[in-house]
Amino acid sequence: MTLLVAEIVRPEHSPGQLLNRLVEQWPSYVAFLASFCYTGVIWLNHRAVFARVRYCDRSLHLANLFLLLTSGLIPFPTAILSSSMQIGNGFDARIAVVLYATVAGSMCLAWLVLFHVLSIHPWLIEDHISPDFFPMERLRAMLGVVCYAVAGVAGLSMPKLALVIFRALPIFYGITSEGLTETRIRLQFGKAHREAAAKRDADRAG
Amino acid sequence: MTLLVAEIVRPEHSPGQLLNRLVEQWPSYVAFLASFCYTGVIWLNHRAVFARVRYCDRSLHLANLFLLLTSGLIPFPTAILSSSMQIGNGFDARIAVVLYATVAGSMCLAWLVLFHVLSIHPWLIEDHISPDFFPMERLRAMLGVVCYAVAGVAGLSMPKLALVIFRALPIFYGITSEGLTETRIRLQFGKAHREAAAKRDADRAG
Amino acid sequence: MTLLVAEIVRPEHSPGQLLNRLVEQWPSYVAFLASFCYTGVIWLNHRAVFARVRYCDRSLHLANLFLLLTSGLIPFPTAILSSSMQIGNGFDARIAVVLYATVAGSMCLAWLVLFHVLSIHPWLIEDHISPDFFPMERLRAMLGVVCYAVAGVAGLSMPKLALVIFRALPIFYGITSEGLTETRIRLQFGKAHREAAAKRDADRAG
Amino acid sequence: MTLLVAEIVRPEHSPGQLLNRLVEQWPSYVAFLASFCYTGVIWLNHRAVFARVRYCDRSLHLANLFLLLTSGLIPFPTAILSSSMQIGNGFDARIAVVLYATVAGSMCLAWLVLFHVLSIHPWLIEDHISPDFFPMERLRAMLGVVCYAVAGVAGLSMPKLALVIFRALPIFYGITSEGLTETRIRLQFGKAHREAAAKRDADRAG
Repeated sequence: MTLLVAEIVRPEHSPGQLLNRLVEQWPSYVAFLASFCYTGVIWLNHRAVFARVRYCDRSLHLANLFLLLTSGLIPFPTAILSSSMQIGNGFDARIAVVLYATVAGSMCLAWLVLFHVLSIHPWLIEDHISPDFFPMERLRAMLGVVCYAVAGVAGLSMPKLALVIFRALPIFYGITSEGLTETRIRLQFGKAHREAAAKRDADRAG
Repeated sequence: MTLLVAEIVRPEHSPGQLLNRLVEQWPSYVAFLASFCYTGVIWLNHRAVFARVRYCDRSLHLANLFLLLTSGLIPFPTAILSSSMQIGNGFDARIAVVLYATVAGSMCLAWLVLFHVLSIHPWLIEDHISPDFFPMERLRAMLGVVCYAVAGVAGLSMPKLALVIFRALPIFYGITSEGLTETRIRLQFGKAHREAAAKRDADRAG
Repeated sequence: MTLLVAEIVRPEHSPGQLLNRLVEQWPSYVAFLASFCYTGVIWLNHRAVFARVRYCDRSLHLANLFLLLTSGLIPFPTAILSSSMQIGNGFDARIAVVLYATVAGSMCLAWLVLFHVLSIHPWLIEDHISPDFFPMERLRAMLGVVCYAVAGVAGLSMPKLALVIFRALPIFYGITSEGLTETRIRLQFGKAHREAAAKRDADRAG
Repeated sequence: MTLLVAEIVRPEHSPGQLLNRLVEQWPSYVAFLASFCYTGVIWLNHRAVFARVRYCDRSLHLANLFLLLTSGLIPFPTAILSSSMQIGNGFDARIAVVLYATVAGSMCLAWLVLFHVLSIHPWLIEDHISPDFFPMERLRAMLGVVCYAVAGVAGLSMPKLALVIFRALPIFYGITSEGLTETRIRLQFGKAHREAAAKRDADRAG
């Protein structure tokens, strides 16, 4: 995962100029942090899915490869979006917005396929997971497909609106990485622990 | 696995020229996708084998290393084949075809060795795998060895025919990644699941 | 892990000058070794924690990502500290010391968060681990936060003192990588082994 | 592991010159294969050890880090040895031989430490492994330490003899990667399998 994260390079500087050089390259710190968070959100979502999977069949592998393909492509439209905002004209910016919306929307489509495979192949998931979990997760992925499509179309006339959507969706997926309905795994462990502790105390008291 | 995949770079462009630059570099998208699919096919086949293996002995490790060596070499003849088609003459093209056929045929030979080791060391495979599975898989690898040999010889006079074979074989191995005879694992899980569900319903009804 | 370690390059040399060139680049050997040990200390501490964890929840993943972020940043202030000592003036050196103290202190803060999550979510840790283990570990991380803060402030007037602290803390964390109170895992296995051996001898004698 | 292996690059060529260019760069194929085999031997030995380990304590981690450090250094003296044979004079060659012998000997020392830790901490190894296994393995590592020391000293007057030793030792370690005394794991699985098959046949016949 670290491999995906851009590196921050040491700035060259003449004596006494270190602080100025460091401050000047603040956009690279923002880019590093944004890239780290973006990768982290994908990783958290991926972990949350595969912590609930007990067996991978061929269709799940294929869906996972599709996800790997689309998420591996993301740095390409991101770099284009970033540079077109600085050096391109309005036409370039629209192209960049459409390209980003297409690739990011494809990634959401890959999540949708993944969640769909797990919905219709319930024997692939762990026994303690609710059979409604992955069907619900499809909604979460569907939302991304729709929002990126809207952003791509809206971006033709209002690139700024598209950028707001591009920033909001990763935040949404970061917050909901454990699923729309699910805090069950944590609760289950926590509850079992508290019950065992209560029982132990009761046994001692008794 | 991502490491093997070529990267797509952001094109430099003057204002308003982003779309043209993006369209111009379409061959790199094809190359990226082809490389991703090729790597994906190898990975799917490799996973399909080792999901059926419960213990690695020394001969299996050696066969696996041979496979790693030959599949790690593939980008080298691929790059030569690609460039010789563009800048080389007919003699270069034939050399490139023979080289590619040799390396890709060696990779099939490595698969053959791997399947043979698992055929004659049946105690290395999971109990629920049919003892006929890996002996059958040898045929699949053998087919590749023969086809790449034919392509290498045919390519001396008809490089285009060789290219058709080079493209067809990865597709064949992608489709058959779970083996010629085997959809059993999936079926077994699916069947067990359906039976359990049916039994549950019957119990409730009863 | 090896990826984090700087590479030593072969020096170019005229005939007969190999030994001189090799001796000349001794600082790169020191840097290689220091970087290897630093990474090794982080890895040992990380292994020591996760050998005691049986389940990762969302808060543990987030704490681990924070740790990954801060430890992945360390090479950046390290390179600045190293170069500012050679080519910068006193002002640069102070900036470099403060920067290093900030990043390294943030890494200790990430450890503190990680230990705190494991203290308040005891159902995430293995059963045989004392419930006092991770609360105690917080002290170890807290010490780093405090020391790096002191080093950052002291470094404004005495950069050399800060460097002493910067060198001492990784050594401290290397020595205590298994925790302040804990040698229990090792003892437990060793004790069980010795008891089993004693029992076996007694059975034979009896 | 693949990361350690040098890459073979596509040669630039004018039309009709591909074959000549490919033949000319044969030393890079030899280097690739040698590097692959060397890495493969280390990997096979490492796997053979850790397939017998059930728990890692701090001393085993430290020994493993020492091994990682020394084996990660090997490409450095290898590159120097290779270039000094081509462009250096006799003095350079001797320096290169001593350097290689020192680093490779240190790697054998790291193996010796690893085997020693496993000899004196028998509770770290799997139950079915003979308690004599790792004490015997120490001899195998000791042999390397002695041979590289001899090669380093002999290389001062006879660099060619040292090169023979440098080539012979990896071959020896490749052949004996499963240990001097041990073919037991394989035999055990094979024997159990044959016995179960014989019993099944007998049951059917009966």
